[in-house]
Amino acid sequence: MNAQTAGLQHSSLGDEIVERINRLGQISETPEHLARVFLTHEHRAAADLILAWMRDAGLHAHLDAIGNVCGRYEGERPGLPCLMLGSHYDTVRDAGKWDGPLGLITAISCVADLHRRGRRLPFAIEVTGFADEEGVRFASTLLGSRAVAGTFNERVLGSKDSAGISMRDALSAFGLDPDHIGAAARAPSELLAYVELHIEQGPVLEAEHLPVGVVTAIAGATRLAANLTGMAGHAGTVPMLLRRDALAGAAECITTIEELCRTDDGGLVGTVGYIHAMPGATNVIPGQASFTIDLRAPTDAHRKRAVADIVRQIEAVARRRKLVLQVDVTHENRTVPCAPWLKAQVAEAVAAEGHRVFELPSGAGHDGMAMIDIADVAMLFVRCRGGVSHHPDEHVETADVDIGARVLLRLIENFQPGVRSAKV
Amino acid sequence: MNAQTAGLQHSSLGDEIVERINRLGQISETPEHLARVFLTHEHRAAADLILAWMRDAGLHAHLDAIGNVCGRYEGERPGLPCLMLGSHYDTVRDAGKWDGPLGLITAISCVADLHRRGRRLPFAIEVTGFADEEGVRFASTLLGSRAVAGTFNERVLGSKDSAGISMRDALSAFGLDPDHIGAAARAPSELLAYVELHIEQGPVLEAEHLPVGVVTAIAGATRLAANLTGMAGHAGTVPMLLRRDALAGAAECITTIEELCRTDDGGLVGTVGYIHAMPGATNVIPGQASFTIDLRAPTDAHRKRAVADIVRQIEAVARRRKLVLQVDVTHENRTVPCAPWLKAQVAEAVAAEGHRVFELPSGAGHDGMAMIDIADVAMLFVRCRGGVSHHPDEHVETADVDIGARVLLRLIENFQPGVRSAKV
Repeated sequence: MNAQTAGLQHSSLGDEIVERINRLGQISETPEHLARVFLTHEHRAAADLILAWMRDAGLHAHLDAIGNVCGRYEGERPGLPCLMLGSHYDTVRDAGKWDGPLGLITAISCVADLHRRGRRLPFAIEVTGFADEEGVRFASTLLGSRAVAGTFNERVLGSKDSAGISMRDALSAFGLDPDHIGAAARAPSELLAYVELHIEQGPVLEAEHLPVGVVTAIAGATRLAANLTGMAGHAGTVPMLLRRDALAGAAECITTIEELCRTDDGGLVGTVGYIHAMPGATNVIPGQASFTIDLRAPTDAHRKRAVADIVRQIEAVARRRKLVLQVDVTHENRTVPCAPWLKAQVAEAVAAEGHRVFELPSGAGHDGMAMIDIADVAMLFVRCRGGVSHHPDEHVETADVDIGARVLLRLIENFQPGVRSAKV
Repeated sequence: MNAQTAGLQHSSLGDEIVERINRLGQISETPEHLARVFLTHEHRAAADLILAWMRDAGLHAHLDAIGNVCGRYEGERPGLPCLMLGSHYDTVRDAGKWDGPLGLITAISCVADLHRRGRRLPFAIEVTGFADEEGVRFASTLLGSRAVAGTFNERVLGSKDSAGISMRDALSAFGLDPDHIGAAARAPSELLAYVELHIEQGPVLEAEHLPVGVVTAIAGATRLAANLTGMAGHAGTVPMLLRRDALAGAAECITTIEELCRTDDGGLVGTVGYIHAMPGATNVIPGQASFTIDLRAPTDAHRKRAVADIVRQIEAVARRRKLVLQVDVTHENRTVPCAPWLKAQVAEAVAAEGHRVFELPSGAGHDGMAMIDIADVAMLFVRCRGGVSHHPDEHVETADVDIGARVLLRLIENFQPGVRSAKV
């Protein structure tokens, strides 16, 4: 950081944060496409930089047993339970630079601000940068936060990356002991709450003309794989009424799923992202069609009801068209609700900074999905341009970064521990 | 042919034809999957076998300048114009053994029957086995019949097969002169008509419980390539009402196309055989979707009206969904109507053999599409099991083969030349 930038620190948290986002965004597997994955040289370089920023901010900082960066800023006296802030610092491939780092770097800047003012609070603050949330390398997500929550599944140590290297070997090569990941786990009594700031990754705040939003829940997701089997045939010789066209059936299923979600007023979203028709020739009626369904809703009950409705409706489509339907659940994540007492404090901080309080669910997954096992969770979303994420065009305006940081700082300074919600 | 089979010839044309279908079906690139493509060893072996059958049947037979097998059975005096019968003897890959050979072998058996009886007619009969109708090797169809019709496009000589061998070189290696394909062309004055017997390749005759049907026209086809561009996005973070989902748009187009064709009472068929959604991940809203449309109808006017209707409707879908639509015609074949005077003689032969006259269009392409340029065309369809074709399960019952042969034989014996229809 040069003197000029350092001089801006006090006038705008946003400028400091954006400068650091840019610096961290240069630590990448290749210069053209941002990619920073678990247990690589880039992971190490990013960790070293973040640890340095933490120490500058007055945090005691170390790398934990799975490669998370962990910083602690003591409260009015040593050893108090902490308000934990954080986000992840790994990325997808060809990523944007904001997804993850914004929450981590903002938290560090907030602590730095307290530190500069010599402010100590009646609780400690910890900032955690999770080493693997995206799960790019070993196809298993939330590795960093699961280790902290004590729910790391040791079976994933055997999983291999695309080069055939096991996670166990990669941990050893990184200098970590795969047999002592348990050392990263934290006790629920050590945490008062977990709060994460993150880019929205969607277009809702932009449409609402709001820089920040209060997250109600991290939506659970159910993924289904559907396959329809009809009868392949010559595109010219089989009359319409004698066809059993699997792709036409899939098309009706897709419009049915879309209609069911569009007419739902409870935040249900449904996506068919993949489709394949066989044999796939211009002049052959498809005998088979496969597609995926991704369903998310702010509550588990709502999502499960939607899954049942959709399965019933696509079964009816298949029956009417004399197609054989096979449908399987391939993935299921519970909904993680944000704790009402904690969410209320986030909302108060938003209002105190002069912004309309707007609540929205998170459709994307976040480290809070793992942290819920040891602490109540809340999230603050920051507007991102066009809702674009997981893409180099991902962008947040510096003014919004600054607002996010001010809301988080106010939340920290006004934070009042609450009674932990019943475990979901 | 052994003595026992030879003994059956007089009792059933069907038995002889099926035995030959089976023998020809063994001439294949590999024993497991029937494939017999243009200018290969299999082409040569099949041609030699067919030429021998032609000579047995009393035909003067030779291989023409493009590799078609050509047999001529003189009429009451030499040099009379001919009724030409025929079909193709190449196959698709992993083919059935009936598509093409049934028409060719049946025609030879009909002439053999006349020859055994010493019957000469007031016109010659020619039987042509076209060397390449399917276009498997050089991705250009109707090569054999186009050469006979004098419409062979010399530019295709430069096209290469998957091994990089040009058609020109393949012709030379086969012993043919690529610079003299024109020698295969016949003058319109030499032909009284072209009649082809072929399996239906569709399920209509089976549904009608009829062994044979009279073809009204070889339906023209228009193929379109459509591409919809919307906006990719996270499956969890973009609310339904803010989406521009290209695959959901494509699905609505597909159901729209199907509905338009289903409610058409003029034989229109429309098929979406290929679809691709990008990026194609379970948890990403597709930003692009491409699909093909294949449209066929018994008249050009009907098909063109349908193309216009469909383009207008999918444009409306795209507009309403704020998707960008690109739609291009990739292929267009005119409709080839069967000549009324000739079709009437086919119908009379069907009725005289004791079967209900049932007319249907051919949705598949046939050599008649090329032959129309030098002669009026008619076709007789024979029922095939389940409408299955271009597949090893392709099957025709021997009883139906026999009926087809009897109808064709009666047509030949009763044939009255007509006045050539106006050229389409």
